[in-house]
Amino acid sequence: MTLSVDADRVLADLHELAAASGGEHAGAKRLAWSEGWSAARAWLLARLAEIEGVSVDRDEAGNLWAELPGDGSTDGFVIVGSHIDAVPSGGWLDGCLGLLAALEVVRTLAGAGAPPAVTVRLVDWADEEGARFGRSLVGSSAVAGTLDPDDVRGLRDAQGTTLQDAMASVDVDLDGAAAATSRLDGARAYLELHIEQGPVLLDSGRLASAVSGTFGDERYLIAFSGQSAHAGSTPMHLRRDTLAAAATAALEIREVGIRHGGVTTVGAITSQPAVITAIAGESELMLDLRHLDAEKLSTMLAECLDACERAAAAFDCSVAPRRVFGATPTPFHPKLIDIARAAVDAAGGGDGPPIPSGPLHDATEIGRLVPTVMLFAQSDPPISHTEVEDSPTEALRIAIAAYGATVGEAIALVAAGALEPIR
Amino acid sequence: MTLSVDADRVLADLHELAAASGGEHAGAKRLAWSEGWSAARAWLLARLAEIEGVSVDRDEAGNLWAELPGDGSTDGFVIVGSHIDAVPSGGWLDGCLGLLAALEVVRTLAGAGAPPAVTVRLVDWADEEGARFGRSLVGSSAVAGTLDPDDVRGLRDAQGTTLQDAMASVDVDLDGAAAATSRLDGARAYLELHIEQGPVLLDSGRLASAVSGTFGDERYLIAFSGQSAHAGSTPMHLRRDTLAAAATAALEIREVGIRHGGVTTVGAITSQPAVITAIAGESELMLDLRHLDAEKLSTMLAECLDACERAAAAFDCSVAPRRVFGATPTPFHPKLIDIARAAVDAAGGGDGPPIPSGPLHDATEIGRLVPTVMLFAQSDPPISHTEVEDSPTEALRIAIAAYGATVGEAIALVAAGALEPIR
Repeated sequence: MTLSVDADRVLADLHELAAASGGEHAGAKRLAWSEGWSAARAWLLARLAEIEGVSVDRDEAGNLWAELPGDGSTDGFVIVGSHIDAVPSGGWLDGCLGLLAALEVVRTLAGAGAPPAVTVRLVDWADEEGARFGRSLVGSSAVAGTLDPDDVRGLRDAQGTTLQDAMASVDVDLDGAAAATSRLDGARAYLELHIEQGPVLLDSGRLASAVSGTFGDERYLIAFSGQSAHAGSTPMHLRRDTLAAAATAALEIREVGIRHGGVTTVGAITSQPAVITAIAGESELMLDLRHLDAEKLSTMLAECLDACERAAAAFDCSVAPRRVFGATPTPFHPKLIDIARAAVDAAGGGDGPPIPSGPLHDATEIGRLVPTVMLFAQSDPPISHTEVEDSPTEALRIAIAAYGATVGEAIALVAAGALEPIR
Repeated sequence: MTLSVDADRVLADLHELAAASGGEHAGAKRLAWSEGWSAARAWLLARLAEIEGVSVDRDEAGNLWAELPGDGSTDGFVIVGSHIDAVPSGGWLDGCLGLLAALEVVRTLAGAGAPPAVTVRLVDWADEEGARFGRSLVGSSAVAGTLDPDDVRGLRDAQGTTLQDAMASVDVDLDGAAAATSRLDGARAYLELHIEQGPVLLDSGRLASAVSGTFGDERYLIAFSGQSAHAGSTPMHLRRDTLAAAATAALEIREVGIRHGGVTTVGAITSQPAVITAIAGESELMLDLRHLDAEKLSTMLAECLDACERAAAAFDCSVAPRRVFGATPTPFHPKLIDIARAAVDAAGGGDGPPIPSGPLHDATEIGRLVPTVMLFAQSDPPISHTEVEDSPTEALRIAIAAYGATVGEAIALVAAGALEPIR
């Protein structure tokens, strides 16, 4: 079906929400589980209440759902949405853009005169950011069945409040959150619009794009041990210099990312004793590796660890890698990617290849279980998680229009039985 | 003249002093200007008082002097000595070895039956270590005329005491310290024994060596500025990664030291924001460069700064170097190096080339004004400034014997008018 949404209404909603929760470009005040977050949700509920035929409820993990029933011709439902929570002093688009575009989709469908061929559900995922307790994708991972309460029970915010208590403050029981997995029973597709939060579209002059998936991510802390010694009294050939080993590894790690078309980042090398007159006896390297292809990610990891081993050996040091995080890639659904790409082109964004997402999104969790696609609007400046986060208005218009059209096509695919479930 | 000292008396003195000021291998308690330091000096004064014909006084900078008059045949005097102060929990040899070997030289000369051909003065330099206020070579630089009271007036220790007040607590007036420069009037030679504090002699299997001079030293903090960005959303080719720039520079800097026969050290690279999921937008590199040859040191510095410029440019970053310390090299006197080398050989240490000193010593200050040489005893373990600092007894015996013989030859050279003054 052809679904034409009104981008201006989404922009108006975005500005209204920004003004209501922090002020325009003044830094969002919508930290998950906080009063600001509840207030933003109350604002969303008021908007949903304005749409005839939509019912609202909340699942066991604190995700907010709104349902617009279909005409009964097709089982199951299509999910649209994103998240209203934000990092402290976050931007006006991260999360909200996708959520309010989904609101506009529901509003447009509800006003179309006839129900859609399949039920549409809007979701506002709880605590996507993880900015308060360090665990992101809380609500979507509960729904996807990957949230173990025991893993997060002890997490505390800067004030010492536990995640469990913060959830309880809005009547969500951490130990009951797993029951929310039933929310995916009958889910036929998930579609999410987001800002890119990176420089790829800006650099290539594109205003919007289909997204091919979210990168898998491996994070390690790699400790090099050598011998601290006096910078003056120790000749070059008698050193066991861990900074030289770590620097060598860091540069090889960079080449691994380039070689395999992924991203490899050494964000810091922390050395001891960190005295200008002393050779570094200990150095710890922070490693983050991402790729959309699980096999290539695994190859990249092996090559990076091998580079660390060789660098350590070259400087007579030892090395000990420690894994601190891992996430498998989530490639999105090929048919949905194709329709999203065509929708961006039709909306005036031009025809360009889908780009991968470096950051994780709720679609990372859902995309493993339900046919999923994301669309990105260009970020300019190409940064996020700050109040200067922004996108050109034209990019937002095109992305919103393309998102609406993609949802319309997805509904049609589901109605035609042409979108196979993953599970 | 042939001067044969008794190494066993020096070893006995070293053990006695260690026991009296901290305990054997328990960490020296002789921090400059402290009660422990004054107590150690009182112990030294008691030893000097046992030697007939020796007079003692203290100069305006707090250095302790003892004089054994010569026979009047030759003007001027030869200086022997080192320092009794130590870093907190320091070793039993750093400073004391040279000072107590000088004590043994004076004791042996005083007991020889006839006065030496030239006056011999022993010196215990004040605050060589600079461990309390961060400024080393305080007493010797005052005598050399390179201590500007205004540069050090505001220095405070961890308790907030100023250097000026600490000096005043033992009746030394910082503003009067410059008068101590007269102590070098008539100085014909300066000879100092020390432990190596590094691995060169241990690595080459040598127990002792003449020292060719002390390295010049340049220290810089080099700031790289790029762009912090998300590790996942920023493709490799769009990064301005300061850690990659600094790592590239660090490895080139290492090659500069190897190429020129000096030492180049990057002790740490400190990056911001130092988050595993972020590209380093700022990185600061600690640089220490040393060489015995001033021209080569200057070339090394130019090459290192050039390497930083090129590395910054290669990663689209900017670079800002800031000089934090500089010291010119002090090559020792060729004739004195030759006699020290021969003396080490004659004492059983074998014939080996003089080695440079990476660390600074009081001889760095004095050697620019007075013909100077140092001798080193092997360090095993090859580290210092810790209570585990040590040297093989055989290395100490050979080094002490060679030092005594070198002083004897230096006296003979001075008496023969064969050692030209530097100034």
